[in-house]
Amino acid sequence: MNNELNATHDPKLRSWVASANEAGCDFPIQNLPFGRFRPAGSGEPFRIGVAIGDQVLDLKATGLVHTDDMNVLMAKSPTERQTLRAAISAGLAEGSEQAPEWAKALLAQSAAEMTVPCRIGDYTDFYTSVHHATTVGKQFRPDNPLLPNYKWVPIGYHGRVSSIGVSGQRFKRPQGQTKAPDAATPSFGPSKRLDYELELGFLVAQGNALGEPIAIAEAEAHLFGVTLLNDWSARDIQAWEYQPLGPFLSKNFASTLSPW
Amino acid sequence: MNNELNATHDPKLRSWVASANEAGCDFPIQNLPFGRFRPAGSGEPFRIGVAIGDQVLDLKATGLVHTDDMNVLMAKSPTERQTLRAAISAGLAEGSEQAPEWAKALLAQSAAEMTVPCRIGDYTDFYTSVHHATTVGKQFRPDNPLLPNYKWVPIGYHGRVSSIGVSGQRFKRPQGQTKAPDAATPSFGPSKRLDYELELGFLVAQGNALGEPIAIAEAEAHLFGVTLLNDWSARDIQAWEYQPLGPFLSKNFASTLSPW
Repeated sequence: MNNELNATHDPKLRSWVASANEAGCDFPIQNLPFGRFRPAGSGEPFRIGVAIGDQVLDLKATGLVHTDDMNVLMAKSPTERQTLRAAISAGLAEGSEQAPEWAKALLAQSAAEMTVPCRIGDYTDFYTSVHHATTVGKQFRPDNPLLPNYKWVPIGYHGRVSSIGVSGQRFKRPQGQTKAPDAATPSFGPSKRLDYELELGFLVAQGNALGEPIAIAEAEAHLFGVTLLNDWSARDIQAWEYQPLGPFLSKNFASTLSPW
Repeated sequence: MNNELNATHDPKLRSWVASANEAGCDFPIQNLPFGRFRPAGSGEPFRIGVAIGDQVLDLKATGLVHTDDMNVLMAKSPTERQTLRAAISAGLAEGSEQAPEWAKALLAQSAAEMTVPCRIGDYTDFYTSVHHATTVGKQFRPDNPLLPNYKWVPIGYHGRVSSIGVSGQRFKRPQGQTKAPDAATPSFGPSKRLDYELELGFLVAQGNALGEPIAIAEAEAHLFGVTLLNDWSARDIQAWEYQPLGPFLSKNFASTLSPW
């Protein structure tokens, strides 16, 4: 963890939430990811929380935010977001005056139901690992896995936003057309080669005007957060459908995003 | 025009809006498309209107709708939508009692500014014309324009929703990488082969639960309307980037939709 980012990443920080100080904890005080949660089974509207140890801190209950809409937080300037993070860190740190009050705003993560963290407008999947591109390329083009453009231009495609869900959810095995190399015609049925790819997701908070490029040096200011993403793929359907316009039905049945 | 759909398509119908009865008019009373408009230059919120002759009828002013949000109309049942259309048709027909009141709710289309008619969640572009697919395919694969899957499976890709605009708007010529067949490396610059395709757009009003198919016989009930779409393409950028994941930067700089 890079403690040069700012004081909230200082490895020496400890929290009054005891589980956050345990070795190997995913959510020490140096890592304070946002998510949307509600008490499991409550049917309440989802609200914004921050993971700390094995707990989730209800941000509205702390008085630090006044919305349940993550996109409202995402629309804030980088400075406002850093100020919010600093306040969350200070309130969760050992010796914080807010500890007695904020302790009431904690819910065990095991008792929380999570959802997709924000409304996603567009979703682009990039093909950025040369090792992965070579491995997958061999499945479709054994003699020619890496195409000539790969090392020059970003290779990506738009995904289907409406089928993005949250990690852990169940979905149906997709059905579709496949064609065996020796078959004269394709056949229809459930995918027999369901696959997943662990990817890194970037949540872009603030866009740009259409046609106005963002300089690389300014890119980070547009980034709200990083998540994990499972890119589910029906490889047998993909192999038959993907030329010339790319993956489509083989990918759009589900993508799942980590809740934090 | 199919007058068996319902009485609003009867070719004998005439409107008290005189321009709607002129030969060759795009918007006779048999064609009552929805759009979102405001008086040009007013900066007012866009509201829902229906084209009639060379005019636009403000639907909220007629008392028939109570929203400026097309997606609210789209969420109504087919029966509710048919009832609304019948009421608009009756009010615009010759001899209608509403004529004096509704005449005040008309604005000349030449004095109206139009916008994208609704919020679009996902956008899929299908490659459904065998003649077009053969013509475009020849540009990229002269010896093999139509791939083996073409006549079997829907060939499509997801487009970028955030760059869908309204017909007539201006946008910047896209820049990107291109590679001449005889060049050792690609180069960067403005597209030299900007192209457009006239397509038919279908606005799907009501979706389905993830993984639940819609039977073909039920498809029409999910359709809200039909528009024209210009699928702008930078063919030189597309030729270099499109393998293996399909068109991306070569398409996502703009798509334009007819306002009605």
